[in-house]
This record gives sequence, structure tokens and C-alpha cells, in this order.
Amino acid sequence: MNGAESLIQTLLDSGVEVCFTNPGTSEMHFVAALDSAPGMRAVLALFEGVATGAADGYARMAGKPACTLLHLGPGLGNGYANLHNARRASTPMVNIVGDHATYHKQYDAPLQSDIEGLARTLSGWVHTTVDPRSVAPDAARAVAAALSPPGQIATLILPADNSWSDNAEAAYPTIAPSAPASVPSERITAVAEILQSGEPALILMNGAALRAEGLQLAARIAGKTGAVLNAETFAARTARGAGLPVVERFPYFGEQAIEAMQAYKHLILLGAKPPVGFFAYPGTPSWFTPPHCAIHTLARADEDALAALAQLAEAVGAKASDAVLAPSHRPDLPSGALDAMAVGAVVGHFLPENAIVSDEAVTAGFAIPGCTAGCPPHDWLSLTGGAIGQGLPVATGAAVACPDRKVVCLEGDGSAMYTIQSLWTQARENLDVTTVVFNNAAYAILQLELARVGVEQPGPNATKVLDLARPVLNFAQMSQSMGVPGVRATTAEEFIKAFSTAMSERGPRLIEVML
Amino acid sequence: MNGAESLIQTLLDSGVEVCFTNPGTSEMHFVAALDSAPGMRAVLALFEGVATGAADGYARMAGKPACTLLHLGPGLGNGYANLHNARRASTPMVNIVGDHATYHKQYDAPLQSDIEGLARTLSGWVHTTVDPRSVAPDAARAVAAALSPPGQIATLILPADNSWSDNAEAAYPTIAPSAPASVPSERITAVAEILQSGEPALILMNGAALRAEGLQLAARIAGKTGAVLNAETFAARTARGAGLPVVERFPYFGEQAIEAMQAYKHLILLGAKPPVGFFAYPGTPSWFTPPHCAIHTLARADEDALAALAQLAEAVGAKASDAVLAPSHRPDLPSGALDAMAVGAVVGHFLPENAIVSDEAVTAGFAIPGCTAGCPPHDWLSLTGGAIGQGLPVATGAAVACPDRKVVCLEGDGSAMYTIQSLWTQARENLDVTTVVFNNAAYAILQLELARVGVEQPGPNATKVLDLARPVLNFAQMSQSMGVPGVRATTAEEFIKAFSTAMSERGPRLIEVML
Repeated sequence: MNGAESLIQTLLDSGVEVCFTNPGTSEMHFVAALDSAPGMRAVLALFEGVATGAADGYARMAGKPACTLLHLGPGLGNGYANLHNARRASTPMVNIVGDHATYHKQYDAPLQSDIEGLARTLSGWVHTTVDPRSVAPDAARAVAAALSPPGQIATLILPADNSWSDNAEAAYPTIAPSAPASVPSERITAVAEILQSGEPALILMNGAALRAEGLQLAARIAGKTGAVLNAETFAARTARGAGLPVVERFPYFGEQAIEAMQAYKHLILLGAKPPVGFFAYPGTPSWFTPPHCAIHTLARADEDALAALAQLAEAVGAKASDAVLAPSHRPDLPSGALDAMAVGAVVGHFLPENAIVSDEAVTAGFAIPGCTAGCPPHDWLSLTGGAIGQGLPVATGAAVACPDRKVVCLEGDGSAMYTIQSLWTQARENLDVTTVVFNNAAYAILQLELARVGVEQPGPNATKVLDLARPVLNFAQMSQSMGVPGVRATTAEEFIKAFSTAMSERGPRLIEVML
Repeated sequence: MNGAESLIQTLLDSGVEVCFTNPGTSEMHFVAALDSAPGMRAVLALFEGVATGAADGYARMAGKPACTLLHLGPGLGNGYANLHNARRASTPMVNIVGDHATYHKQYDAPLQSDIEGLARTLSGWVHTTVDPRSVAPDAARAVAAALSPPGQIATLILPADNSWSDNAEAAYPTIAPSAPASVPSERITAVAEILQSGEPALILMNGAALRAEGLQLAARIAGKTGAVLNAETFAARTARGAGLPVVERFPYFGEQAIEAMQAYKHLILLGAKPPVGFFAYPGTPSWFTPPHCAIHTLARADEDALAALAQLAEAVGAKASDAVLAPSHRPDLPSGALDAMAVGAVVGHFLPENAIVSDEAVTAGFAIPGCTAGCPPHDWLSLTGGAIGQGLPVATGAAVACPDRKVVCLEGDGSAMYTIQSLWTQARENLDVTTVVFNNAAYAILQLELARVGVEQPGPNATKVLDLARPVLNFAQMSQSMGVPGVRATTAEEFIKAFSTAMSERGPRLIEVML
């Protein structure tokens, strides 16, 4: 058994069954070993940012890591932006990065670079395998590290000779990941007292608390005590829809956030951090919690939020009947002009039960959350780290993880172009993803931000750098060129026809909304 | 004057006139400042790998740096692979990486990451500006660092408040870059004696020696002494064509390289390094110079190769008439089937004088160098660091640098897909680039490498990960979707028609060769 074979077998034994990859020469033995362990599903991406983003989307939905297989430093570099997003999502992921053979590194061949240095900037765990016998135990350790609560990126650098050499260990016993730490009961008691005091409190949540079970518990507590529930602005995964609590996102814009926080005397954190500005702006504070608001941590991200919520619900005497849940509601269909509101109504009218929404619509998608709040239960995946180019890959990985669920990817035109190669992987794997691209021919968020940082009247050069016209991209045609059927919609009627068809049939497709 | 304005003015004063950018919120004041200094040409890329690759291509042809403007760690990360290639090309480049405001970093906002750590893995010079008054001198130092022989990547990290604050210095005086060091005369004398000994010698060249003047001097020396001239396998820029010396590339494949080196008793390095394997292969040595061959450094990459060649030519008594130069020759036009040989003949038949070739054709382009050796003089830009996805961006930047020269980009289908967004920038800037994509629906080089690393009979999973069929990409259509006219050629006649038209007209276009 060579190192590559022992690696794949160990990954499989540890529950890692999917590998998103864009391999090169130094990864050829891993590629060859795929045929020794057909349980490992290899999904080819044409660009590494697709592979890393797909591994993120997969893990968010599967609840366990996928691995990536990347080609030396440049392959890891191409995956950097979506690894950044995955790090911010606390996504468990195992990167296997091929490297030159151990004895070859001294020669500084053209592809040589500081892989460890690069990997350290984005991984919670980094290790380079030193010999073939270590490959299997290193792989087991990598998976355990990735699953360390709340989840992190583990990068295993694999020199080619450790992959191809024959004297490897067979698969190594799985290492059980550490469980989330329990929240001390004093913290539960203290928060219960605060909530029962009647003083205005905001419970800010992220992580496991935003799944259905956590939300139900949180809603009981909120209903009983009058506390307000918010989700962090960009949560990795949120359950929502009819029968689930409606939890507003904490505001993105600083002015709104600061105003919202004025009302509270207590901020209670549940897997979340105190809210701060996404960016700094001249004259606007970065820290949003006012001095009169005390901050209390109920559960850190690595602690057991569900158990803490259950105990807190009991401590305050909250019952199921205290929860306020979203009523079932679908918007009426619009007609005529196709604007952001009309798009929201159409999506809300047709979004199927159990859908997964990968949301990177940026400015153009603002109406969609409101329009889908009463749809049948579904999951919402946000852009967690602000590095645009996440939506299409995350949708791709989510569809691999959940082949029986419809995936809807909401994309801005600007953000779509960072990882547009995702469409080809969707076509090859015949994934059930409907991508809606909002073509407003601009980096509209940046046009907005330009004003917000104090530039009131941008000149022609600044304006040019933020528009995506001249030429206007044709996403329907681009999609077709990668094997995904694509159509353009310019009226509400056209979008209704295209979106309803997409929701009722299976397979990848793209709808370009001309705004 | 705010920091951004003083930055742009200092860059302009230092000769940096083009900025390839994909900006975000933290770069908005730089964007706004573009209108205060219209001498700075801002070229928008839809993906940062296009921006960094274009800055590489620009500098290779302009002989001076462009700058990039990138958005925090993820923007730099997206540019990583082509920065790796630029590092291997010794390209002078100034990266301006926007960062959060100095006082905002403590809050670990979603886009926060270790930019300095990332930048250090690929830059020769890294600095974070500490206050607005330092922006201008930091910019001057960055340009000087980039131009430090033989050229390197300088990364200046610019916190947003240092960009927007008003108490900046005005533009800072330019700092003269250091000149290449002179080669000591004893080295010239020693190499002259070796060459005059009659013992077989290989002169391996890279850098300035591969421009017309250096090649002419080297060819005289070779003609006079019997030494063989080779260029490093993947040189950043090589002058070639009728009237210039024919300099073979050092072989890529180790077996050929090792055999070739057996003939020599001396290896003389001129801006080059001793040849090593691009990758390691089981059972094949990585170091190609045999024990009986002595290695002599005539000039290091940071030394003055042209002066050394002139002195060496004089020391061995070489004259212009000693040089063997390529005769003028163009291949006849083929007919019928369109294969790699036919493509080479057509390119060689029509390549115009002064063309710039950006070569990332990988396997499918093997016939083109031979078919163009007798064309009118032109420049050849290679993939320097092995990180595919360089060809289209480098062509883009070269066309910005040399608006009066035809740029021909030779692309593999696999490599094209890493930075395909380049086409949109070519359309927007109306650049005179003809891209030829070889569509063989495979990572053909990897199919070859799989066998070379010892996998003789790959199974179905391995095979699947290396093919690009199912679905076959349609590059002509993809090109059209980004505003660049695209056609498919399936016969020699179709390719002749498309390529000859492209060579006689101006503006961006793409020809997809179906192999």
C-alpha cells in the first residue's frame, strides 16, 4: 500500500467521502489511488476556488468535512479566498496539498513556494508529512483537527514521494474529535436572571443555535422573557421558513446597527461575537455595543450551544407554546417590470420545501429574505468572510452533499465572475442547482460604499472602475458554454416561467435577471 | 492631499502609470483619487489573478512596473498564483493591498486576515504603512524595491485610514533603484579561458541575455568558440525570429535533459540556475548536471549580463560575423485536418513582425516554436512558475504595455479556465490580443505525467479527473459572452481564415481550435 492509498483509506474510515480537486503532477499518485478506494467521490473543479468553496458548502450541509486536493502553493493560493470564507464559517475541512518530493525541495524548482507559510495564514492546523509511514496517522489527525469544535481548516501538505512510496501504514484508526465543551451552569443561571429581570436584551446567535432545534429553543426563551433574537449578519447556515422562528439578521450598515443597539441593556452572545463594523468608515464607530449595554457570553463558538439553550429554557420556564413562529405565506406573483422586489416575490412564490439557498446576491437580492420567510422550511447559506466568489462554489458543494434537495444560488454579476467555473462542475456532476444571476452591470455595492466612505461625487475614472458595462456580460451564454442551460429574463413573466420550470425540474440551470 | 492622492502621485513620479485592479470598500479612496491624477490608467479586472498576471505581462514588455490594487487578504490570495509566476519571472511589480483602518483591525471583522503573512510568501519586499505621512515615502520605497535587480515583487499594505486621511505628504521624491552589479573581470577571464579550451560547454541563459542585444553577443561567442546556447526552459521573455540567433530551450523532460547534459564538460550560467527537474519522478534524478560537468557562474540574475557578454565577446575575439542567425522562413499553409502541426504552420505563416506571443499552450502547442523560428522578430513570453492561468492575463498586460504590437496568446483549454475573465478586460480596453485556445477536452499534460510518475494503467476514477469532456467547453461561445468575438475552427482552412483575419485586423478575438 503506498502513501496515497493509505491516505484515502484513512480519510474514508474517518468519514471523509468526497474530494473536491484540481490536481497536478505532484498529486498524480493520489489521483491514481482513487481507483483503489472507489468509496471516495472525486469531483473535479476547473479552478481551485471552486474546490475550496464547494468543500465549504458540502460541510455546511453534510455536517462533516470533505477534503480538497490542491496542487502545491499556487493551487492553495487559488483556493485562498474561499478558504478565508470557510474559516469565518468555522467549516470543518481537510486540505490535502501536494508538494514536491522531500528530496526535490532543495532545488527550488519553478513551482516551489512556502506552502506552510501560506497555509498558516488560513488554517487552524497545518502539518507536512515527513515519511510514508506517517501519512495515515497524519490524515487521521487532520480530520480530528478539522472537526475540533466549532470546526476549522486543517491543511496536510503531502510531499510526492510520501504519496508514491510503498511502505506506508495501512489505514490508521480514526481519532475521535473532541466534543463541544459544556457551558457551566453558573453562566446559565446568570443569563436566566438577566432575561428574567425584564431589562431589554438582545440574544445574538451563530453556529448550531441557528439550526432548527436551536432556533426553537431560542424562540421559546425569547417568547417567555421578551428578549430579542438576532442572527449574526453573515451566518454560515440558518434554518428558516414557516413553522420556524423568524430571526432577523443583525444589520449590516453601521448606522442602523448602532441605532438598533441603543435599545438594549444586555447583549447575550450564543456562538457569536460582539457586533463590529464590516469595514471602518470615516467618523463612524467600529464597535457597535454602547457603554450602557453589558455583554454576556452564554456560549462560545466551541461550546455546546444546544445544551445551553435547553438548560436556559428550563431555567426561565419557557415552553414550546411560548415560541413565536413564522406563519406560512407565499407572495403573490408580480407582473410587468422585473426589479428586485419582483424577483423576491417570484422566488418566495416557488421556493420548494427543503431548498438550500446559497446567497451572494449582494445588493440586488435585498427583497428575497423577506419574501421567503414564510416559505416551507429551508436552509440559508451566507457569504461568511466577505470574499466574494463564494456563492456558486458553496451551492455546488451543498448539492453534492444533499442530492435530494433543490439548491438555489442567488448571485450578483460581479461576485459570480470570481468562480464562474463552478458551472462546469455542476454540469459534469449533473447537480440540482438553479443559479439566478442579477445582472445590473455594476459593482453596485461598491458604488454605494464609495458614497459611504465619504466620496460624494466620484469622477469618471472612479466611476469606470465600478461599472461592469462596456461590455455587459452575457451570463446565459456563458452558462451554455460550460454545459449549463442558461436563459435571460427581462420581464416578470419571463422570470416566472424560467424559475418555476427550474423549481419543478432537476439538474443545473442558470437564469440571468436583467436589472 | 489625502494618503491615496499622495500615493498615486508618487507612483506616477516613479514611472508607474498603470494600475490593474479589482478594488473593494477599503480601496475606495484610492479609486476616488484616480480622478485627481488622470495620468494613472486604471484597468479593471473581474478577478485578481487577471490583475496580477496582467501586471506581470505589462512589466515584462514595458520594462518597468505596473501596480496592482487589491482588496485585503482575499484579493491578494486570488492574485497569488500569478504573483508566484511573476516572482519566478523576476518581474518588477508593486502590489497595493488595501487593509482595514488601523484602529479597526483589533475587532477581527470578517475580512480580517494575516495579509503580511500571506504577502511574505510571495514578495521580496513587504511593508504596512503606519500613518498617512508615510504613504508617499513608502510608495517610493516600494517602486525602488520592485526595480531592485533583477526585479521583484513589492507589496505595500495600505490601511484605509492612511488612505483617506488628509495630512499626507505630497508626492515623495523618487528613489533611484540600484543598478545591476558589474561582473568582476576575473570571472570574464576565467570563462573566456574555458570557452577557448575547446572543451564542450553549454551557456544557459535567462533574463536580459535573452533580449536581442544579449542574444547577438551570445551568438558571436558561441559561433567563435563552439559553445552551445540554451535558454532556461521557461524564460520570462525571449527575443526570437529571423536575424536573431536560434537559441533552443533547455529540455523540459528529465530524460532528455539528462541525456543532453552528458555532452558537456562545462555549464556556464548567465542569469540562469543549474537545471533541475520541474517535478520529481520516481527513479529519475532531480539534478541534471553530471559529475563530469563543472558549473561556472558568468553572471548572476542581479548582475549586468549584457556588459559581461560584451566583455566576454571581446576576450574571446568574437565578431558580429561569427554569429549564426536564423534565416527568414515561413511554413507553407496546410490543408485538411487541423492538428498541432497544422496549427503551428498557420501561426508561423502569418505571425506579424513585432508580435508578442504569450505561450501557455502546454501540450498542444509543441509545433509552434519551430514553425515560428524564422518569422520576423517577435517576443516570446513563457509560463515561468508553472502555475497555469498565466497566459491570458500576461497577454492582457502585454497589450496594455505595447498598444502598437499584435499579441497572440496560445492557450490550453485547461489553463485558460483559471483566468478566463481576462477576456472581458480585453474587450473593455479593446486590446489587440488574439487568443488561440486548443480544445482537446483534457488536462493532456497530466495524462502524460500520470504515466511518467509510474501509473501505467489508470482506472476510471483517475481518468475522469483528468478529462475535460462531459461537457466539452465551448470557448467561442464563452468568449462572446464576455464581449470578445469568438469562432471555432475544426479544419485547417477554417483556422487559416480565422487566424489570417485576426492578424490583419485589430482588437480582441478568440479562436478555438478543436483537436
